[in-house]
Amino acid sequence: MSVYPKSYHVFQSIGVIRTPYKDTVPYQPVQTEEGDFKLVLHPQYTEGLHLLDTFHYIYVIYALDKIVVKTNWLLVKPPWAPEMSIGVFASRSPNRANPIGISVVKVKQVKQNIIYISGIDAFDGTPILDIKPYLDLLDAKKDANFGWVNQTGDVNHLALHIKGVPHKH
Amino acid sequence: MSVYPKSYHVFQSIGVIRTPYKDTVPYQPVQTEEGDFKLVLHPQYTEGLHLLDTFHYIYVIYALDKIVVKTNWLLVKPPWAPEMSIGVFASRSPNRANPIGISVVKVKQVKQNIIYISGIDAFDGTPILDIKPYLDLLDAKKDANFGWVNQTGDVNHLALHIKGVPHKH
Repeated sequence: MSVYPKSYHVFQSIGVIRTPYKDTVPYQPVQTEEGDFKLVLHPQYTEGLHLLDTFHYIYVIYALDKIVVKTNWLLVKPPWAPEMSIGVFASRSPNRANPIGISVVKVKQVKQNIIYISGIDAFDGTPILDIKPYLDLLDAKKDANFGWVNQTGDVNHLALHIKGVPHKH
Repeated sequence: MSVYPKSYHVFQSIGVIRTPYKDTVPYQPVQTEEGDFKLVLHPQYTEGLHLLDTFHYIYVIYALDKIVVKTNWLLVKPPWAPEMSIGVFASRSPNRANPIGISVVKVKQVKQNIIYISGIDAFDGTPILDIKPYLDLLDAKKDANFGWVNQTGDVNHLALHIKGVPHKH
């Protein structure tokens, strides 16, 4: 079977994610206080945000530029389920072929070139590659599932880990 | 207000999207016949697909490499609502700062390095940058909306345009 040759693609940051998570504090729980999390676009892109505030949710696509790729990264062992071995493309691990992150976040307010959002699990200063509206019919799948996560036990508990919500064991 | 300097990010294709939509046929409606749509990974990544078939839906992240960026692309006029002017980041237009596409697709079957999927609105040969599982609690937002699309009239009708489903006017 023929496969197309590999190709390279260069993207330029359009702004940065501002969070309370500095470089020395890797995996903090997500907070929801107003103003803690925002997307600051390079001012030249401000016009491209027109009507973004009409959406409840948006996609943020960003470069995971603080991630060091490990060896043996094609299979992942989740910290909360170390007995399992998961294909990296069946995981949300940041150690992946292309270090691209996606998050669905709530839009709180748009002011000029700044979008105030709900919590996002990204380092302060993470470069933003794209912002897209999250559309009800296209993106909200009512029959979505948890895949292999269901095989590891209590989905509600694991969801806290996935979302980075602080809790007691 | 200080903004971080722009940064450049290079990604490498991990495979290609195979669809019936060749280069000369731009915006075809989406079909759903088995085998019409698939993601063909470069064989070296096959192991990374382990357990992907446990998910109903996945994200496909790809490079929109057939898109020619227009001038005045910060504001978009939807073909079906030409009286409106939409910020590009509030739109799913392919003419954007970074030509990155995202689609949520159904997983039908995974065989070796090939993922058989539901329809996707991409050209044949489109380079894949990443594949991620779509997780119920994280990604399926029950209170998502249609933003400005609601202001243009009949959402159900417009949804057909958005999804590329053929219909009569």
